[in-house]
Amino acid sequence: MAYKKLSAEEAAALINNGDIIGFSGFTAAGCPKTITTALGKRAEEAQAKGNPFKIGIYTGASTGDTIDGVLARAHAIQFRTPYQSNNDLRAALNKREAHYFDLHLSELPQYLRYGFLAKPNIAILEASAITDDGKIYLTSAVGIAPTVARLADKIFIELNHYHPEELAGIHDIYEPADPPVRREIPVYAPGDRIGVPYIRVNPEKIAGIVETNLPNEVGAFTPSDEVTNQIGRNVANFLSSEIKAGRIPASFLPVQSGVGNIANAVLGAMGLNEDIPAFRIYTEVIQDSVIALMKEGRITFASGCSLTLSTPALEDVYHHLDFFKQKILLRPQEISNSPEIARRLGLISINTALEADIFGNINSTHITGTKMMNGIGGSGDFCRNAYLSIFTTPSTAKGGKISAIVPMVSHLDHSEHSVKILITEYGVADLRGLSPIQRAETIIENCVAPEYKDLLKKYLQLGQTGHTPQNLVAALSFHNAFNQTGDMRNVDWKTSR
Amino acid sequence: MAYKKLSAEEAAALINNGDIIGFSGFTAAGCPKTITTALGKRAEEAQAKGNPFKIGIYTGASTGDTIDGVLARAHAIQFRTPYQSNNDLRAALNKREAHYFDLHLSELPQYLRYGFLAKPNIAILEASAITDDGKIYLTSAVGIAPTVARLADKIFIELNHYHPEELAGIHDIYEPADPPVRREIPVYAPGDRIGVPYIRVNPEKIAGIVETNLPNEVGAFTPSDEVTNQIGRNVANFLSSEIKAGRIPASFLPVQSGVGNIANAVLGAMGLNEDIPAFRIYTEVIQDSVIALMKEGRITFASGCSLTLSTPALEDVYHHLDFFKQKILLRPQEISNSPEIARRLGLISINTALEADIFGNINSTHITGTKMMNGIGGSGDFCRNAYLSIFTTPSTAKGGKISAIVPMVSHLDHSEHSVKILITEYGVADLRGLSPIQRAETIIENCVAPEYKDLLKKYLQLGQTGHTPQNLVAALSFHNAFNQTGDMRNVDWKTSR
Repeated sequence: MAYKKLSAEEAAALINNGDIIGFSGFTAAGCPKTITTALGKRAEEAQAKGNPFKIGIYTGASTGDTIDGVLARAHAIQFRTPYQSNNDLRAALNKREAHYFDLHLSELPQYLRYGFLAKPNIAILEASAITDDGKIYLTSAVGIAPTVARLADKIFIELNHYHPEELAGIHDIYEPADPPVRREIPVYAPGDRIGVPYIRVNPEKIAGIVETNLPNEVGAFTPSDEVTNQIGRNVANFLSSEIKAGRIPASFLPVQSGVGNIANAVLGAMGLNEDIPAFRIYTEVIQDSVIALMKEGRITFASGCSLTLSTPALEDVYHHLDFFKQKILLRPQEISNSPEIARRLGLISINTALEADIFGNINSTHITGTKMMNGIGGSGDFCRNAYLSIFTTPSTAKGGKISAIVPMVSHLDHSEHSVKILITEYGVADLRGLSPIQRAETIIENCVAPEYKDLLKKYLQLGQTGHTPQNLVAALSFHNAFNQTGDMRNVDWKTSR
Repeated sequence: MAYKKLSAEEAAALINNGDIIGFSGFTAAGCPKTITTALGKRAEEAQAKGNPFKIGIYTGASTGDTIDGVLARAHAIQFRTPYQSNNDLRAALNKREAHYFDLHLSELPQYLRYGFLAKPNIAILEASAITDDGKIYLTSAVGIAPTVARLADKIFIELNHYHPEELAGIHDIYEPADPPVRREIPVYAPGDRIGVPYIRVNPEKIAGIVETNLPNEVGAFTPSDEVTNQIGRNVANFLSSEIKAGRIPASFLPVQSGVGNIANAVLGAMGLNEDIPAFRIYTEVIQDSVIALMKEGRITFASGCSLTLSTPALEDVYHHLDFFKQKILLRPQEISNSPEIARRLGLISINTALEADIFGNINSTHITGTKMMNGIGGSGDFCRNAYLSIFTTPSTAKGGKISAIVPMVSHLDHSEHSVKILITEYGVADLRGLSPIQRAETIIENCVAPEYKDLLKKYLQLGQTGHTPQNLVAALSFHNAFNQTGDMRNVDWKTSR
C-alpha cells in the first residue's frame, strides 16, 4: 500500500488545537473510532499543561461514544453540528460549554461547500478498502464523507477490517454541482444508482492509515412495548385505510421512517398488515426491523445513509451480502435526505415527536423548551416535502406526569404546515384541510390521554378569540406546572388569565 | 365561438350551496371578478329565505375584493385555503365564521390531485383568449388554474378583454405527474420553458363564457419610507459583501423576493448597488419594482406566478409587450414555488417577518399568536430550500410600542432552521453556524431597536440554563404586556420567574 501506516496516537499527534474535523459515518455506523480516542487523551494532556485544545466537529449525524463522548469528556469540542445523541456531549452543550448548531442534515454538505461554515481542514474516514490511486470504499454509512474528503487538506483513514471488502459496491457516491450550474439529482426510484461506489481523492492528501478491527458502537434500541406496538398498529391501519380510499396509490409509495423503538414498531406493524403491499424504503437510517422485513420479503429495497444495525443484524447482512447487496444502497445524506427526491418519489414520512401541541406543531428537539435532546436530524428534510407527513408520539411520559400533547409546544421544529397526521397509542388525528380550532378538537378527541382531555378542552375555553385560540398567558402553563411541581396535571388556571 | 355566452348572473345561478370552486389568479392579478359578485348576491338572497348558501374556495393566493370580500360579507364561505389578505375575510376567519387552513402555496395543487382535500367541482378562470378546441390562455397570473381546470367537472370562463390577446405566450403551463411516476421538473434557469402557453381542457366541460373588460383589483402598496429604504440598503450591502467574500458566486444567483413595500425597497436598493450585477428573479409575485429595474437593465429576467402590478405598470407592460415578453414568464405556483427548483437554482430568498425572536424563529402569520394576518404564502416554500434565506422586518411597530423582536415568537411559521440572516433597519444578524445563545446575542446587538436592547438582554439573564435559554414563565411576557397595557416596554419581570 502506498500510504503511511500510523498508530492512532501518531495520527492524533498530527491534529492540533483549532483544527476542524469532518468525519465519515452517520449515527454510530461508519464512524472512525480510534484516532479520536487518542485525540481525547492528547487534548487532556495539553489542557493539563495549561494549553488550550479544542476542535470543531462536523459529522453526518450522531456518532459513537469514541467521538462525541470522548471529546466531550475531554472538553475538547469548540463547536459541533449537525446532530448528536451522546449523554456527555448533551450535558456539555446544555451547559453551553460547546457551541452546538442544529441543522437539517441535508443542508450540511452544501453549506460547507458554499463557505457558510468554517472549512474542515481535516477529514477522518472509516474505510473498508482503499486503493493506491485514492479510491476510498466506506463501511456501513456515508454521511458527509464525500464532501469533507474533498474539502479537507489532510485525510486520515481508519481501515477497519471488521467490514468485509466485499461491501464495496453497496455505496452510491454522488455530490451535486453547486448553483448556478446544479442539475437535477437523477433518482426516480429508491434503487436508482447515480454515482460511483467509492470516494475518489488525491492520494497526496491521505496523511496516513490507521488499521483497526472494531465493530460499530451501535447501542441496542429500547425494545417495543404495548404503547409503541399500538402506535405501530395505528399507523399501519391508517395507511391501509388511505390505500383503500385511493389517497395512496395501490402500488404504495417509498417509506421514510425515523430512528428508534417507535420506528421499529411502526415498520413491524406495517410488515404484518396484509393490506399494505411489500414496500420500499427511502430513508436515512436503516434499522434492524428493515433487515427482518427484507428477509420476509415485505421490504423489497432500502436506500439509506447508514446501516445502523445491532451487531448480530449487521453480521447477518455481512454473511449474506450476495442477498442484501441487491436490496440495499447507501447514499450521502445530501441525497438520502434530498428535498427534491422526497417530493419526487412521494415519500410516506413517519417521524417521532418529542412533544406536539393541539394545533399540530411539533417539538423534536428541546425538553421543556431549553434542554437540547438530540437535534432535528432529517425530520425536517423529509416532513416538509413528503407525499404524506406523519408524526407519532406516546401520549404521555413519566407515568402520566407529562402530556406529550400541550397547548403550545415549548420549542417548535416542525410547524403546523409540515404536520399532516398525528398518531398516538390512542388514535389518529388527520389534520389535512382543518382550521386550527378543528385541528385542536381532532387532536384532543383522538390522540390525547384520558387524564389530559378535560384540561386541554378547558384550555381552549380560556377566552381568547382569533383564528388560533391560544391564550398567551396560559400557553406554556403545562410546562411551568411541570417545572414547578413535577406534574403537568397540577396546572393552575387561576394565574393564567 | 363554440361556447355558450352567459351573464355573470346566469353563471352564478348554476352554482349551488355546497359547491367547491377553484379559481385562477394569484393575488388580485388574474382572478375572475364578476361571477363571484353575482354569487354573493345569490348567497344573500338564499340566506334571506332561510336557505343555507356556502361554498368552499381554493385560490392561488389572495384575491381581489370581488372574490374574498364579496363572499365573506355574504357569509358564503364554508372553507378557504391557502392564503388571503382581505379585511372582511380576515375578520370572518378570526371570528371563526369560515374555516381557513393556511398552506405552503406549492403544496395545494398536489394535495388536490392526491385527494387530500375535497375535490373542486367547479373552476372559474379568467382568460385573455380561448379556442374552440379548449385551449385557455390566462391573463396576468396562473396560480392553481391548470390543476383546478383539470379536476373540475364544470368550468366557467371570464373572458376579460382588458388583457390583450398578444399576452398569449407569456405563460408556461406545466403540471408534474404524481408519484410514483413523477420525474424531475426540468427548470435549470429562470427563463427555461418546460410546458405550453395554454391550459388545455375538454371543451365539453366549459359551462359558459362571461365577457368582461375590467382591470385587476391590485391595490397600491404602501410606499417606501426611511425605515424600509434602510432595510433595503442593509440587504443590498450584505449581499454585495457576500459576493466579495466568495460566498455568493460573482455571477450572482436568482432572487426570490416577497410582497409589499419592504420587498420593493429591497429590490430598489439592490438595483442601485453597483457591486451587485444585473440579476434574474425566480419568485411568485412580480411587483412594480421588477418592471422598473427591467427597464433599467438591472433585472434581466423574471419568472413568477403573477404580474401583481399597479394599473399604470401593467399598462406599461402591455404597451411594450414585445420587450417584456422576452423577459417575463408566468408559471403555475407548483413550479414557481417548487422546493426542487429553489434548491437547484440556488435562490437568494428574501421574505418579510411579522415578528422574529432572539433565537431566530419567525412568525409570518399571527398577530399576538391568535389573529391571522394573511397566511404563510410562499415563504416556507422558498426559505427552507434557498441557497441563502434572509428575513427582514422593521425593528418596531406602533411607534415603538411593539418590538418586532421578542423572546419567543407568539406563533412560529419558520423555525430557526430556515432563517439564516435577519435584517432590520439597524443592521444584519448573520446566524449561520451559531448556537442559540450566540444567535440571541447577535440579533440583540445588530437588529433590535435601542429601547428594547436592555429588556432583551435582561430576558436572557432570567435564570434558565440549557442549550436554548428560554424562560417559559417569561417567554411570552412581551406579548402579555402589550395585550394588557398596550406597550411591550411595560413588561413586568417580577411576575415572570
